[in-house]
Amino acid sequence: MDLITEKKTDLFQIRDVETLVNWLASFGQSDTGGANRLLYSEAWLEAQLALKNMIKANGFTAYFDSVGNLFGRLEGTKQKDKTILTGSHIDTVIDGGKYDGVFGIIASFLATKILYQKYGRPHKTIEIVSLCEEEGSRFPLTFWGSGNITGKYTLKDALSIKDTEGISLATAMKKAGFDPAKYRSPQRKDIDAFIEMHVEQGLVLDYSNTSIGAVDYIVGQRRFTICIKGESNHAGTTPMPYRKDAISLASQYIYYLTEKAKRLDKDLVVTVGKINAKPNVPNVIAGEVEFSLDVRHYNDPLLDQYCDDLIQYFTSISEELDMPIDIHPWMKVKPVAMDPKLTLLSKKVAIQHNISVRSLVSGAGHDAQVFGEFCPTALLFVPSQKGISHSPMEFTKKEDLENGVHVLINYLYELAYT
Amino acid sequence: MDLITEKKTDLFQIRDVETLVNWLASFGQSDTGGANRLLYSEAWLEAQLALKNMIKANGFTAYFDSVGNLFGRLEGTKQKDKTILTGSHIDTVIDGGKYDGVFGIIASFLATKILYQKYGRPHKTIEIVSLCEEEGSRFPLTFWGSGNITGKYTLKDALSIKDTEGISLATAMKKAGFDPAKYRSPQRKDIDAFIEMHVEQGLVLDYSNTSIGAVDYIVGQRRFTICIKGESNHAGTTPMPYRKDAISLASQYIYYLTEKAKRLDKDLVVTVGKINAKPNVPNVIAGEVEFSLDVRHYNDPLLDQYCDDLIQYFTSISEELDMPIDIHPWMKVKPVAMDPKLTLLSKKVAIQHNISVRSLVSGAGHDAQVFGEFCPTALLFVPSQKGISHSPMEFTKKEDLENGVHVLINYLYELAYT
Repeated sequence: MDLITEKKTDLFQIRDVETLVNWLASFGQSDTGGANRLLYSEAWLEAQLALKNMIKANGFTAYFDSVGNLFGRLEGTKQKDKTILTGSHIDTVIDGGKYDGVFGIIASFLATKILYQKYGRPHKTIEIVSLCEEEGSRFPLTFWGSGNITGKYTLKDALSIKDTEGISLATAMKKAGFDPAKYRSPQRKDIDAFIEMHVEQGLVLDYSNTSIGAVDYIVGQRRFTICIKGESNHAGTTPMPYRKDAISLASQYIYYLTEKAKRLDKDLVVTVGKINAKPNVPNVIAGEVEFSLDVRHYNDPLLDQYCDDLIQYFTSISEELDMPIDIHPWMKVKPVAMDPKLTLLSKKVAIQHNISVRSLVSGAGHDAQVFGEFCPTALLFVPSQKGISHSPMEFTKKEDLENGVHVLINYLYELAYT
Repeated sequence: MDLITEKKTDLFQIRDVETLVNWLASFGQSDTGGANRLLYSEAWLEAQLALKNMIKANGFTAYFDSVGNLFGRLEGTKQKDKTILTGSHIDTVIDGGKYDGVFGIIASFLATKILYQKYGRPHKTIEIVSLCEEEGSRFPLTFWGSGNITGKYTLKDALSIKDTEGISLATAMKKAGFDPAKYRSPQRKDIDAFIEMHVEQGLVLDYSNTSIGAVDYIVGQRRFTICIKGESNHAGTTPMPYRKDAISLASQYIYYLTEKAKRLDKDLVVTVGKINAKPNVPNVIAGEVEFSLDVRHYNDPLLDQYCDDLIQYFTSISEELDMPIDIHPWMKVKPVAMDPKLTLLSKKVAIQHNISVRSLVSGAGHDAQVFGEFCPTALLFVPSQKGISHSPMEFTKKEDLENGVHVLINYLYELAYT
């Protein structure tokens, strides 16, 4: 059974997806075509309120919780206390793209709307969610929306965290109208499953010409800041054997860590994205280099193995050369597995409807990783053209957006109507 | 014959060297203990005038040329038109050390003074010189003093060159009182030899516990700015085989060029002192890296061979990876050989007087390289502790300063009195 081909109107409605994405993404649009909806900003609030009106106008119960997560509830006829929660986040990075977060909200809204129009109320409750925050662009924390639903954060956390202007999260929240006295607590105990659809932000689907990615794992991350001390000296008068050249040693390390990663496992990704040398002058040997290291994989022991080996190699070489090294670990996030049954079901649905699908690992963080430790969770991707993300150049083809909604309709049907 | 042990007064006078270095270095002293005598500045002029007075007070004819080079002339009795010119430069880098330039002037002055007191006028004319400029710290050109003497520069060059405040070299020169109408032309045709004594600015003499370095060559230099273009992308979602990581490729190149230099020749020195990445963010793959490359050796064909190989290697790898590279050469200075006979004589003199001596290559530029293409030239080094140079921390032991003067007395005796 292919739900959307049964009636021409359904197909017509799916075709609305691009229009609706453009509509929601237009809130906070910048001159460059990028979007700015930082948490609790004016544009953010306008977007949430406009979305609330649209949800309401389509027959759902629309409500906010006290941190500003927006819900559209379609109560179940048989299991109203078992909620299938589906959606994504409304906030953006600074000058972000149109699809990141927005597409997931629109897809969930559209799929639920079509199901409701066709089949009436589901057996299990479906709630669409527009999560208030995921990116960490305004305040130095991420997943404020999903974190409050799942109990990772509480309102107390909002007091001490400040934006670059010194405004606390609590103050910004109140200023946007979100008073715990007026709204219900964000914490939930009734979530039966969380289903998130999102753009890939990578190029695997685009390069493999696949419409849907079913995510098995969201990777674990390790981040380090590595500082090598050398000896700053004259580039002309210091023979090579007498040198303690920090740029040269950093290069040796970066070459080593890259080659090692390539050999160890095809799903391992490592990045040195930042490098700074001192004094950074052409004719002076560098006395100090600091570089970042970002390591990601879905298998925690493999992350341990890789990082331990690097640390041992760096330490022994630096000791041998009498060039002190400081390896500062500042992020350690464990991999999160998506629910295997839910993920398998999403793939079955796609295959049933002749929509290309493949398994994927998510190299980026998503709200699904917060839910993944709290309830059965599935994360589905649609392609990002050339993998471009967090940029006004972000783009997903209309056909892929439609395929995403097409899969989600049938997937939510399986989860909530059968 | 050891001239200085013949009379106690000579030894006593040699011991003045440190006091005299401190005296001359005190002009333009900064709060950090560094020296600032930028060309034609007030401190620079005070130093030259004070030195002129002292030269005069010791029985020499003291005079300036029209660019501000200061001479102390002791006319020869037999060959007065064949001048042995000896000295170094009075200017400093910003916050430079006490010895760089100053020691060479003081050593030449002291050696000539002692010879004159003991033996009267020489057969050949000796002139002490305090060259007006070598470092290129105020104006974007180097060797203005020696360049004017040898004809490398003329006064016309002073019109278009400006300091960071927009003052032309010509204006600054006039403001300091150096008017071509008032002073003699700097160009000379009577220089029989140029003898420069200088601190090594490297650590070979210090590490090998040697007092005197007899320089065979001043190295040639090649400098490049190398820019690699990659593709800026998400650190988590871009699998390794799909990456065009500019930091990773730059590291491969820097590792390669360092290892290759170490293998090719022990006197080859190569330095990547500056590296800048874009966007230089920990969780974004670098889309661009620019780094400097400084290559020095005394053998021009070897410089060619090394640089050509690098360019070929970089170009072919970058083509293979479809990551454009721009290799911009912006400096090409040929090696300059010192006069072999003069250099050999300096070593013989040192050995005769039981002062440790070794052959050296100068990795830094000196006025001697300008004279080296114009007349027979010798360049002698004394140690720089730990090789530190262009810094208030620059230091040479008293014993080494004295050994330098000791050698210079006997060396000038051989050149001008026999």
